[in-house]
Amino acid sequence: MSSTYGERLKLSIFGQSHGAAIGMTLDGIPAGLPVDLKKLQEFLNRRAPGQNDYSTPRKEADQPEFLSGIVDGYTCGAPIAAIIKNKNTRSGDYSNSKDCPRPGHADYTAQIKYGGYQDTAGGGHFSGRLTAPLCIAGGLCKQWLEKEGILIGAHLVCVGGVTDDPFDPMNPQLDQVRSDFPVISEAAGARMREIISNAKADGDSVGGIIECAVTGLPAGLGDPMFFGMESRIAQLVYGIPAVKAVEFGAGYAVGYMRGSEHNDAYTVQDGTVKPLTNRAGGILGGITTGMPLYFQVAIKPTPSIAKIQQSASFSKLEAVDLQVKGRHDPCIAPRAVPVIEAAAAIAIFDAYLSRY
Amino acid sequence: MSSTYGERLKLSIFGQSHGAAIGMTLDGIPAGLPVDLKKLQEFLNRRAPGQNDYSTPRKEADQPEFLSGIVDGYTCGAPIAAIIKNKNTRSGDYSNSKDCPRPGHADYTAQIKYGGYQDTAGGGHFSGRLTAPLCIAGGLCKQWLEKEGILIGAHLVCVGGVTDDPFDPMNPQLDQVRSDFPVISEAAGARMREIISNAKADGDSVGGIIECAVTGLPAGLGDPMFFGMESRIAQLVYGIPAVKAVEFGAGYAVGYMRGSEHNDAYTVQDGTVKPLTNRAGGILGGITTGMPLYFQVAIKPTPSIAKIQQSASFSKLEAVDLQVKGRHDPCIAPRAVPVIEAAAAIAIFDAYLSRY
Amino acid sequence: MSSTYGERLKLSIFGQSHGAAIGMTLDGIPAGLPVDLKKLQEFLNRRAPGQNDYSTPRKEADQPEFLSGIVDGYTCGAPIAAIIKNKNTRSGDYSNSKDCPRPGHADYTAQIKYGGYQDTAGGGHFSGRLTAPLCIAGGLCKQWLEKEGILIGAHLVCVGGVTDDPFDPMNPQLDQVRSDFPVISEAAGARMREIISNAKADGDSVGGIIECAVTGLPAGLGDPMFFGMESRIAQLVYGIPAVKAVEFGAGYAVGYMRGSEHNDAYTVQDGTVKPLTNRAGGILGGITTGMPLYFQVAIKPTPSIAKIQQSASFSKLEAVDLQVKGRHDPCIAPRAVPVIEAAAAIAIFDAYLSRY
Amino acid sequence: MSSTYGERLKLSIFGQSHGAAIGMTLDGIPAGLPVDLKKLQEFLNRRAPGQNDYSTPRKEADQPEFLSGIVDGYTCGAPIAAIIKNKNTRSGDYSNSKDCPRPGHADYTAQIKYGGYQDTAGGGHFSGRLTAPLCIAGGLCKQWLEKEGILIGAHLVCVGGVTDDPFDPMNPQLDQVRSDFPVISEAAGARMREIISNAKADGDSVGGIIECAVTGLPAGLGDPMFFGMESRIAQLVYGIPAVKAVEFGAGYAVGYMRGSEHNDAYTVQDGTVKPLTNRAGGILGGITTGMPLYFQVAIKPTPSIAKIQQSASFSKLEAVDLQVKGRHDPCIAPRAVPVIEAAAAIAIFDAYLSRY
Repeated sequence: MSSTYGERLKLSIFGQSHGAAIGMTLDGIPAGLPVDLKKLQEFLNRRAPGQNDYSTPRKEADQPEFLSGIVDGYTCGAPIAAIIKNKNTRSGDYSNSKDCPRPGHADYTAQIKYGGYQDTAGGGHFSGRLTAPLCIAGGLCKQWLEKEGILIGAHLVCVGGVTDDPFDPMNPQLDQVRSDFPVISEAAGARMREIISNAKADGDSVGGIIECAVTGLPAGLGDPMFFGMESRIAQLVYGIPAVKAVEFGAGYAVGYMRGSEHNDAYTVQDGTVKPLTNRAGGILGGITTGMPLYFQVAIKPTPSIAKIQQSASFSKLEAVDLQVKGRHDPCIAPRAVPVIEAAAAIAIFDAYLSRY
Repeated sequence: MSSTYGERLKLSIFGQSHGAAIGMTLDGIPAGLPVDLKKLQEFLNRRAPGQNDYSTPRKEADQPEFLSGIVDGYTCGAPIAAIIKNKNTRSGDYSNSKDCPRPGHADYTAQIKYGGYQDTAGGGHFSGRLTAPLCIAGGLCKQWLEKEGILIGAHLVCVGGVTDDPFDPMNPQLDQVRSDFPVISEAAGARMREIISNAKADGDSVGGIIECAVTGLPAGLGDPMFFGMESRIAQLVYGIPAVKAVEFGAGYAVGYMRGSEHNDAYTVQDGTVKPLTNRAGGILGGITTGMPLYFQVAIKPTPSIAKIQQSASFSKLEAVDLQVKGRHDPCIAPRAVPVIEAAAAIAIFDAYLSRY
Repeated sequence: MSSTYGERLKLSIFGQSHGAAIGMTLDGIPAGLPVDLKKLQEFLNRRAPGQNDYSTPRKEADQPEFLSGIVDGYTCGAPIAAIIKNKNTRSGDYSNSKDCPRPGHADYTAQIKYGGYQDTAGGGHFSGRLTAPLCIAGGLCKQWLEKEGILIGAHLVCVGGVTDDPFDPMNPQLDQVRSDFPVISEAAGARMREIISNAKADGDSVGGIIECAVTGLPAGLGDPMFFGMESRIAQLVYGIPAVKAVEFGAGYAVGYMRGSEHNDAYTVQDGTVKPLTNRAGGILGGITTGMPLYFQVAIKPTPSIAKIQQSASFSKLEAVDLQVKGRHDPCIAPRAVPVIEAAAAIAIFDAYLSRY
Repeated sequence: MSSTYGERLKLSIFGQSHGAAIGMTLDGIPAGLPVDLKKLQEFLNRRAPGQNDYSTPRKEADQPEFLSGIVDGYTCGAPIAAIIKNKNTRSGDYSNSKDCPRPGHADYTAQIKYGGYQDTAGGGHFSGRLTAPLCIAGGLCKQWLEKEGILIGAHLVCVGGVTDDPFDPMNPQLDQVRSDFPVISEAAGARMREIISNAKADGDSVGGIIECAVTGLPAGLGDPMFFGMESRIAQLVYGIPAVKAVEFGAGYAVGYMRGSEHNDAYTVQDGTVKPLTNRAGGILGGITTGMPLYFQVAIKPTPSIAKIQQSASFSKLEAVDLQVKGRHDPCIAPRAVPVIEAAAAIAIFDAYLSRY
């Protein structure tokens, strides 16, 4: 049950990169929620490939077909199912990956786990393409949260050493993220694009770090221990290919801090008690404080690079010089930005349904 | 269902810090596994409080009573239940935390979520004391994995800026972690202890970073997407109080790396294809590669500090100068080391049961 | 998460009767299992409507399109997704059911639960049509169990008081169930068809009882308490519309029996200890004994009847004489026979995956 | 994960009949619910053994110790854990059951599944004694439902052919069930007791049928398909040892009925649309109609009988004449009455938490 997530809602993701279709089912959604398909498409377009020089030239419209769960623009209470048909497939590009695993890919583990029966075309079920149905589910949850005043946004906070302005923990500037490239600082964005272009020119790729923030959250979402907000979000975010680190609030830096530096003091504000600062990232004891929730996610460099790499053949047991073909993003992080938003939306909407 | 974890096994943790008892039930364990109670006690002692100058003087023997699931030294197939009775309780220390939340604690969110019905004594169900039953479950899983040649160890890799020798990703030196203080380098340990003592002397606390490694893993454990090894471990580890960051393999650094630097090339070794390096942390596509699995966890500084902090009263809606009383660790990270091992053991044994 | 089932596998059913498509995802299936699509279609045809005079004239080919999870005739380890497009829809037949609930249908509860947002066309997600994707999942599980020597068959044991020869608990005569009408005794089948035709002629419908048996099961499947075989099968079978009773082994009759009549004694046979009789229905303590597993299921009469029935209008709050239009089976039980087999196959394959 | 149940709440049952203790954890319960321990004890006493001549002379006070989750008489939001220590144990009575399975017991399947590691004393985890912690959980849920006006009651509707007055489907006479013996008709109760005494005198046992009803339910509880009320209740009820049949509403009789006889017509009543009759048992499409929910459960005769029975030895592979010793109820059905109420309460409270 690898590709199923959720407590109150049940999200099931299916499909392989170059199979007939990819898609998702989303069960447990209340009836009567409005669905804005135009807005959803705009959200999906942020993830879609082929839009510019720093992403893969594989073009996929990523237009979902809804098969169930929505009637006359509203959820009907039945499971929502949607698919995206795969059109622009070139499975011939991948015929070798069973015998000769591409470094950094799941080819190696898939071969061992599935014994050669795995779908290798385009990475099969391990492909980043599976984040498209995740974005269908997440785009819907994002819409529904917005109706409750809960906003989610993310940006590239670092690519190859270049850093964007970070979100303000007390008041994340979600509306300042640029629509052409997901950063706040135009200058930082320009330098990041240069770094990505340089990597591409070198037949290489580069990783990045994404920061995501959620505002308008009520206090009291999430549960202690294994269903705390960190656990819920991390389980889902780590399901996104290429994620290797997740941190909340002050994150890793807490290992270097003293309690007096880290603790958020309280004050009286708006007729109630509130934290004065937000190093906790909006979560204490797994439960939202009502302050902005924010977290960072590290995305590894795209493993598919044009440079020749050393691999080996399972069948011949000899070293092989491997050059990965196919069309690949030199940096997947920009397209992962809406995916992280989608994951946050799903995890938060699930917790929201548990409480309201 | 906040305190329940697992796919094949079901772990349920219960208890409050100063209630009658804390404990756990562990369902889904096969019959016929041997249980070495002496070894388990040694493992629990590593977490137990009151052992030295840098931990809380609250003394608890942390001796589990097994109520079910074990007969004549072997699991019998029925759910395992164990409790630890709370003896050394001083609930009077905590009477104020409902109205005046302690900064950095879950007091604030518990008050909002549970509306005043929460057990505040010692942090109630949010207390770090709940990691004792986690260690019962984890200590058992660790024993069972050892029988299969799978070893788990952790150490403090950083406290307040002082760093220990890191684990070698290809061959983590688990047997070099010292038993008196969980570091590899005696000198680093001495400096960390000094930092902790200084923090204590200042009425303050300090955070730390723990590195955990697992050796002897077969390739093929874990699943793609939401039940990948990273998702499984992160969900559980984030259930441990004070954890604010989790990273696998090269972790955050991947955001700064190029693909050619990060990808692990393959070679032929021992008659099969194997990775030459291990920046992936032993996981590709959520599935173990057979290389050592390693990850780092950041532990925030103990929020309970002697220094006066600013809080506010829910009832009077006025600022309050708060001095946290009670007995607290100036740095919880050393005692968290076996807890992280326990979490890793549970997550891995769960995945192991799924496959074998 | 109403439409999701399973422990080791995760089955998710979606779709509404007259929506774009119905379908299912099946996660957790091992790689390398062969899929015989021709055999699956034959199984689905047994459930499909429009085949004879006692079923609805709505014709649907019920041909599944597989979107994922199968490559070159074998499962690939990724979730299996399949859809059946709805072609022969007449949604105009159902426009009234929101305001004026059809007696015996879910119209009434759907209106209250979903507040008018439910899809009422053809019963929406409550339609018996949703058993088609259940049969896709079940037909696959049935194939895989057959490879292990585990056979599943069912027959109509009663329709309107006419009873078929029951299965022999020690040796259920699965191969004697007729292919034209699912009974063992041709004479009983002829009388049942007459009863169904008479009900139809009267503008009425009739219920039935199905008996299902499983042979070739290994001993040791299932678990004590809530994941015993009875619990697993009953949860799934009660998810099939129109099921109102489920009994295992001697079933209801146990309430009338003495222990000395009911207990199955043991003997030595084939070099091991085996039960001499099988009143337990192949299950003791929730776990299979290795004897044939058998159970009975009562199917209520199709609620849609041509006769005028008394209903009432939610909006006008006045009584209404209702005549249900549309195309309906006068007895759904014959078509439910493969659905019960499918449910048994899914529950047993799930338990099988847990053990092997 | 055999002994864990629930969607919104997570119930975990542990213990073996003659182990140190039996108990339960109940996670997912909101904070602030009052707990009346005296009332709970009265409920548990209805199940407790040793109260009269037709139950086992083993005396157990069945007094729960609450370890967590309750503070000052209210739930605190943390998991509730409670244990009952086993006092009156005589494990010597059961030493033979590993090699020589008692007919009708789980000895046979336990031996095969657990390979000799199972706890055989008193049936171990398969013992009816495990229904005591189920009654702790169920007794609490029953209290909480009562506060919402939802009442649950059950009675013996049949023992050995003697039938009690059935519940009125429109208005079940819960308050007419007698406290000394759980029947409505004193005469029927007297005859049932005679039947039980006769069975005991013959060294035999007898089965029974329990009818359970729930009143005051809101419409709209439960979900379509696998989380319908029938699925939820049946999964839990089949987890109770000795249950072999479960039917809802008109139950098995639906197999003999016509649609015009079975369908419940609608009328306008109390300013809304309501069913005129209740053959559906208060459930349509898996969802409560707001009418009384009722179901019947068949309990097999106690397998432990004094009469000599035929068994066989696993080790010697020879037939054995077996006389079961120990203390056993000649009819377990009377003591199972509160257990069925407990199961209904848990399933309904779980569904209730999902909706409110």
